[in-house]
Amino acid sequence: MKHPRNLFYAQSGGVTAVINASACGVIQAARARPDLVGTVYAGRNGIVGALREDLIDTSHESDAKIAALRHTPGGAFGSVRYKLKSVAENEAEYRRLIDVFRAHDIGYFVYNGGGDSMDTANKLAQVAASMDYDIACVGVPKTVDNDLPITDVCPGFGSVAKYVAISTLEAAFDVESMPQTKVFIVEVMGRHAGWIAAAGGLAGRDPGEPPHLILFPEVAYDEDRFVDAVRDRVERYGNCVVVASEGIRRADGTFVAESGQQDDFGHAQLGGVAPHLAEVVRGRLGFKFHYAVADYLQRAARHIASAVDVEQAYALGRAAAEMAMSGVHGKLPVIVRTSDEPYRWEVGQADLAAVANVERHLPPEYITEDGFHITAACRRYLTPLIQGEDYPPYTGGLPEYVRLQRNMAPRKLPAWEG
Amino acid sequence: MKHPRNLFYAQSGGVTAVINASACGVIQAARARPDLVGTVYAGRNGIVGALREDLIDTSHESDAKIAALRHTPGGAFGSVRYKLKSVAENEAEYRRLIDVFRAHDIGYFVYNGGGDSMDTANKLAQVAASMDYDIACVGVPKTVDNDLPITDVCPGFGSVAKYVAISTLEAAFDVESMPQTKVFIVEVMGRHAGWIAAAGGLAGRDPGEPPHLILFPEVAYDEDRFVDAVRDRVERYGNCVVVASEGIRRADGTFVAESGQQDDFGHAQLGGVAPHLAEVVRGRLGFKFHYAVADYLQRAARHIASAVDVEQAYALGRAAAEMAMSGVHGKLPVIVRTSDEPYRWEVGQADLAAVANVERHLPPEYITEDGFHITAACRRYLTPLIQGEDYPPYTGGLPEYVRLQRNMAPRKLPAWEG
Repeated sequence: MKHPRNLFYAQSGGVTAVINASACGVIQAARARPDLVGTVYAGRNGIVGALREDLIDTSHESDAKIAALRHTPGGAFGSVRYKLKSVAENEAEYRRLIDVFRAHDIGYFVYNGGGDSMDTANKLAQVAASMDYDIACVGVPKTVDNDLPITDVCPGFGSVAKYVAISTLEAAFDVESMPQTKVFIVEVMGRHAGWIAAAGGLAGRDPGEPPHLILFPEVAYDEDRFVDAVRDRVERYGNCVVVASEGIRRADGTFVAESGQQDDFGHAQLGGVAPHLAEVVRGRLGFKFHYAVADYLQRAARHIASAVDVEQAYALGRAAAEMAMSGVHGKLPVIVRTSDEPYRWEVGQADLAAVANVERHLPPEYITEDGFHITAACRRYLTPLIQGEDYPPYTGGLPEYVRLQRNMAPRKLPAWEG
Repeated sequence: MKHPRNLFYAQSGGVTAVINASACGVIQAARARPDLVGTVYAGRNGIVGALREDLIDTSHESDAKIAALRHTPGGAFGSVRYKLKSVAENEAEYRRLIDVFRAHDIGYFVYNGGGDSMDTANKLAQVAASMDYDIACVGVPKTVDNDLPITDVCPGFGSVAKYVAISTLEAAFDVESMPQTKVFIVEVMGRHAGWIAAAGGLAGRDPGEPPHLILFPEVAYDEDRFVDAVRDRVERYGNCVVVASEGIRRADGTFVAESGQQDDFGHAQLGGVAPHLAEVVRGRLGFKFHYAVADYLQRAARHIASAVDVEQAYALGRAAAEMAMSGVHGKLPVIVRTSDEPYRWEVGQADLAAVANVERHLPPEYITEDGFHITAACRRYLTPLIQGEDYPPYTGGLPEYVRLQRNMAPRKLPAWEG
């Protein structure tokens, strides 16, 4: 009989309101099978934790604390934006990972992240095979941007969608009350894909209901068209509520607002679209405006998480661990939609290679012809994802989010000089 | 026996997540006394609705819709920023108000707003008396800024405080997960008073817990001190979470960020503090940052309203109507705190004149000596105000907020040429 081996889990990329629900699923599934899994080690700050042999020994965390991860936002073990180079470019990194895994008898690798992270998991799977190191590499999808292919939805998206739809609805009620405020702009995340901006469209059910305009990264931003549309909506409805994706670009491909910073994946850090649009509104229309920039608040808003999203995040975490434990390699669990209404879904499987580095944008049939709103087909897709309110427990007026002890496992190897 | 007379109710100034709960209290109290009150008319857009004889006849709204106001953000009848001039400067406006009230047999005037609005109600009370028009003028306090004197708290504040505390807590969990993000800044409302910024301080219980810095309007902003403090917190804690009031000013009294717009009370419209501070952090420290601007989202966030706040807003609305119906004139109901822990409060009364145009700032004993955080005394004051979660009902993933019919009462007077 095989002795139990250890499981390495890590979180990568921008965190979400529910990535810890996936962590909870992974760890609970592993704890349920002591015959297969000894210790679950979590990488401190994602894959970098493996490279540096910064392994959090999760066996010191109580069952209650692990259960509380299900309702705790952020990444409990620390995330990171770090993309491994190709094997040809930096084989040493991959060898280091295998060395660390060998030293700690890691037989299961479960990596929770977006497209870049699925790429990392996929490359590692290949290198391990070529080095004859026995490990099951499985991904867990996660991204608020909802830009992974194949899976019906990425855990994290449903909750940010719900937050953005509710915030847009609430702000619209406020704006309608204030006759002097003509334009309200809320800036939401979505670097290349307009899924989050689209979710703002759920706040209204017909064209006269806010939001009146949605600016998608998939539609080239044209200042004149934007100004004309704002003027038109203010004339028709008394005010204009705009949901703007941080990632909107002009026809020439330049971002409307770049912060000037880059992340370690080399992506431009965005931000400042709302102030920019507000300046345009003031300068060209003279309307009184307000704007909000939701930024981290939107993806951390566990207090109003979508119950569907929490359940899916947890289910995919569990499924990933179970897949790894049963020897599945180079795959990730995904959400398969079997019915729109009532919404029904099940967990399927896909190849990491098929998901890595492929960005799913809003399809043209989800955007109205004028480019400023979502279609009925888009509503059919989005609506199920924001169903249910999975409220966290509260003490003293604040959510009871958990901070783990994060005890480090003793190192066994020399420090990494990468 | 006196015949029942009509009640005029209006909403003024920036709206809140719970001003409609006060409206609900006013209207339900009036409906309970048909012997005293005939019709409740609501001013469309505050006092301007009275000047223009734009009176919403609330008797067309069902009891269910009025009840739903308790969980609906924004101002259901429209608000306005409009300050009546002194009687000496513009007696015609006051005469017009009395003309409109006389035409519609208004015997009760209930005005829901902040300091400026209590001033309006107070002036009207005096003019009515001097014109021998029989009317009971009562205020209902409301302001997210919590800057009214006498009352323990202003309805609207507890909910924005809860929202800001939770949002800061959640964003802090996100920032802690992202080792590359060193500084996170959330900009909150509070033109002259730092109550909302102070509420962000509830997110952490000891100095090492975020937020690490709070910038209050009551403390002169000094860029060098800010930069030093950010560097220090990043060195000590790995990151620095900042809650910044929109109203922070330099020692010379200039606002750090003015949008260049003014409202109709002549106040500078603020906004842009967070982008400004982020620029300082980038330029002088080179740290990777994120920032959020909550703007209307914070004061419209009925989805996470404080149960205490909702209850108080409703109670003060009811009390105001009851005071007016019993002939009280020139006063407003206020919250009297009788115990910190457990929090106990009751409804008292104050003179409109004592509340009008007086701004209550954070007292020095609520701010730590370094000017960057809140004291234990401040926590004792704030903590009770964010207790309880008064969740709205949901349908299809979104809160069931109500939009009223707002049928206009037929006009009886010539149009106003004011």
